[in-house]
Amino acid sequence: MRTQVAIIGAGPSGLLLSQLLHLAGIDCVVLEQRSGDYVLSRIRAGVLEQGMVDMIDRAGVGARMHKEGLLHDGFTMAVGDTRLRMDLKGLTGSSVMVYGQTEVTRDLMDAHAARDAKVIYEAEAVTPLDFDTDHPRVTYVKDGVTHEIACDFICGCDGFHGVCRKSVPEGAITEFEKVYPVGWLGILSHVRPVSHELIYANHDRGFALASMRSHTLSRYYIQVPLDSPVEAWSDEAIWDELKIRLGEEAAASMETGPSIEKSIAPLRSFVVEPLRFGRMMLAGDAGHIVPPTGAKGLNLAASDIHYLSTGLIEYYADKSAAGIDAYSQKALARIWKAERFSWWMTMLLHKFPDLGAFNAKMQQADMDYLASSTAAQTSLAENYVGLPF
Amino acid sequence: MRTQVAIIGAGPSGLLLSQLLHLAGIDCVVLEQRSGDYVLSRIRAGVLEQGMVDMIDRAGVGARMHKEGLLHDGFTMAVGDTRLRMDLKGLTGSSVMVYGQTEVTRDLMDAHAARDAKVIYEAEAVTPLDFDTDHPRVTYVKDGVTHEIACDFICGCDGFHGVCRKSVPEGAITEFEKVYPVGWLGILSHVRPVSHELIYANHDRGFALASMRSHTLSRYYIQVPLDSPVEAWSDEAIWDELKIRLGEEAAASMETGPSIEKSIAPLRSFVVEPLRFGRMMLAGDAGHIVPPTGAKGLNLAASDIHYLSTGLIEYYADKSAAGIDAYSQKALARIWKAERFSWWMTMLLHKFPDLGAFNAKMQQADMDYLASSTAAQTSLAENYVGLPF
Repeated sequence: MRTQVAIIGAGPSGLLLSQLLHLAGIDCVVLEQRSGDYVLSRIRAGVLEQGMVDMIDRAGVGARMHKEGLLHDGFTMAVGDTRLRMDLKGLTGSSVMVYGQTEVTRDLMDAHAARDAKVIYEAEAVTPLDFDTDHPRVTYVKDGVTHEIACDFICGCDGFHGVCRKSVPEGAITEFEKVYPVGWLGILSHVRPVSHELIYANHDRGFALASMRSHTLSRYYIQVPLDSPVEAWSDEAIWDELKIRLGEEAAASMETGPSIEKSIAPLRSFVVEPLRFGRMMLAGDAGHIVPPTGAKGLNLAASDIHYLSTGLIEYYADKSAAGIDAYSQKALARIWKAERFSWWMTMLLHKFPDLGAFNAKMQQADMDYLASSTAAQTSLAENYVGLPF
Repeated sequence: MRTQVAIIGAGPSGLLLSQLLHLAGIDCVVLEQRSGDYVLSRIRAGVLEQGMVDMIDRAGVGARMHKEGLLHDGFTMAVGDTRLRMDLKGLTGSSVMVYGQTEVTRDLMDAHAARDAKVIYEAEAVTPLDFDTDHPRVTYVKDGVTHEIACDFICGCDGFHGVCRKSVPEGAITEFEKVYPVGWLGILSHVRPVSHELIYANHDRGFALASMRSHTLSRYYIQVPLDSPVEAWSDEAIWDELKIRLGEEAAASMETGPSIEKSIAPLRSFVVEPLRFGRMMLAGDAGHIVPPTGAKGLNLAASDIHYLSTGLIEYYADKSAAGIDAYSQKALARIWKAERFSWWMTMLLHKFPDLGAFNAKMQQADMDYLASSTAAQTSLAENYVGLPF
């Protein structure tokens, strides 16, 4: 088989890239080691920046998002006794869209199915090869048969654990990493959200987040020790902890119910440099991870896809490699700013073991200054709604 | 002897407080363990916020400052390859005044001498007593004779090493501290400043600051290891290092000459809570220290004196203790914000041993975001010119 662009990974990054390239008349094949159902079973982020909303519209898959998604003009933060509503819309003119990553993926999958696009699920042993030459190729096994795709470019949209980054020779890549000594225990439940906007809280007992996927589906998180097994947390224990950490007002109106998903995720900052290796480019979690505080992971994948799709379209339309050559540097400039924001918001909102009394005071001072300063709030808000591409 | 307010320490805090209280008709005595010449020999900060300039004017000692001080509308920051002029005036409407702490102290000393105010230099064994009662007193020894001053209040303006904070019973006070693993080597020299504005640089070899006291008196600093003895640094070695760290443009126009003062200072963040103990209040370095990055130490002492003088004047004029009762809380709210700013600017601008590759990237990302965002620049600028009292 031959294609122009082989995309490895059928998560939101890979499918969004495939869709945008298709609309520009570029031929793609998407390879995914899991099944479509498995991909849709992963519960992930749910806050989209305006820039990502615009991309989804450009990809022609925004109809359901605009119907079912919830536009949020602000959110609430609480650190110690200081509580602050962040007026995103008033401060920046922009809102964010609450619409689950799963739904974005489903809309993209539907669009691919409708046009009978080449998305190959349950492709085993996917291997990017010869990307340091002008003739890259990808091999994979399907139903016991080995296949090979010859292509112009390989796009690694295969996540943190994917094969693409791991295929780069060790000396050609530099990793930057910070692991935070806490985890997020997430619970999904068919209950009404406690508030029409998100609430981020740094309570004496640790971080909590009240979030949602719709008017009837709530997503909550609490900070837990990294060694805390998910089995140790009954639904009731989680609801009790949420009521304490989110404060009396939230507790009084919190609707509780059985969990339909419950899991613990570690918090990690991770970036590799560069993101391009000859004719293979990494995008999204394959190249970088942010801790979930601030909801930058999916949005950052989208901005990678913006730079990458623009570069590839320019390559085929204008016979210019300028956009591809600039991809790594452009994407990384925005990635590092989002890494900074996610790191800062994570440091502000968690109770870390061994933080120390002085640093705990710095958390509170950061919050108190924020509550007092329009400039500081504008800075937070412009990062939250998304820095320009 | 009896007075209304006994002030311990004749640095800028103590003398500014004494002057403001005197103008309100309140009787004070200032006790200083050192000589006046010694106090004037201490080379310290030299950047005054507008709020402090206004206080100096209200104290009636601003004439020489307005004649000889230099109004700065901005400064330059450089981190790695990113260079940025901070337009303080454009961003906030305010400027800062470059005028040495020594000069502020001298003007205050002259005003005290002119009105024959009670400032007792070389007072030995100064001891604040009975401040947990309604009848506090201070004893001291002068020329071998023990004296006692009965007073209504004791104000501890005696610096980090002073006796006042140390007189507070251990259980009544909480200390917060962070010590940074670097020092500042400062040099004072009769040469023209390399730039008409300050330059803060975070170079691969460490921090450097080009500062000044006047058009003919320059003050430079470089980050050095904490265990580096000042004797190890010849004037020539310091100039060479400054030329490297401040960059080629600065190096080309840098005038060098013999040092007239050379010393190494540690970098420390330190705050005690509360700042009031019965009828004794702490102000300035007696209660808190900031690292010098951002020039907040002297200005923070001035805002303490603002709250403290206002409270004392209210006490005598209106027979109300409300201002004194609120002193600690009001002063600390502003102190913690300035501690936050000084800590942040220190973390941004130094090469710390064991910082790690990820945190070094966060420094660069902080700077690159700052260079790209008017909101972030406004936030920095409003802190640099001084948050409102």
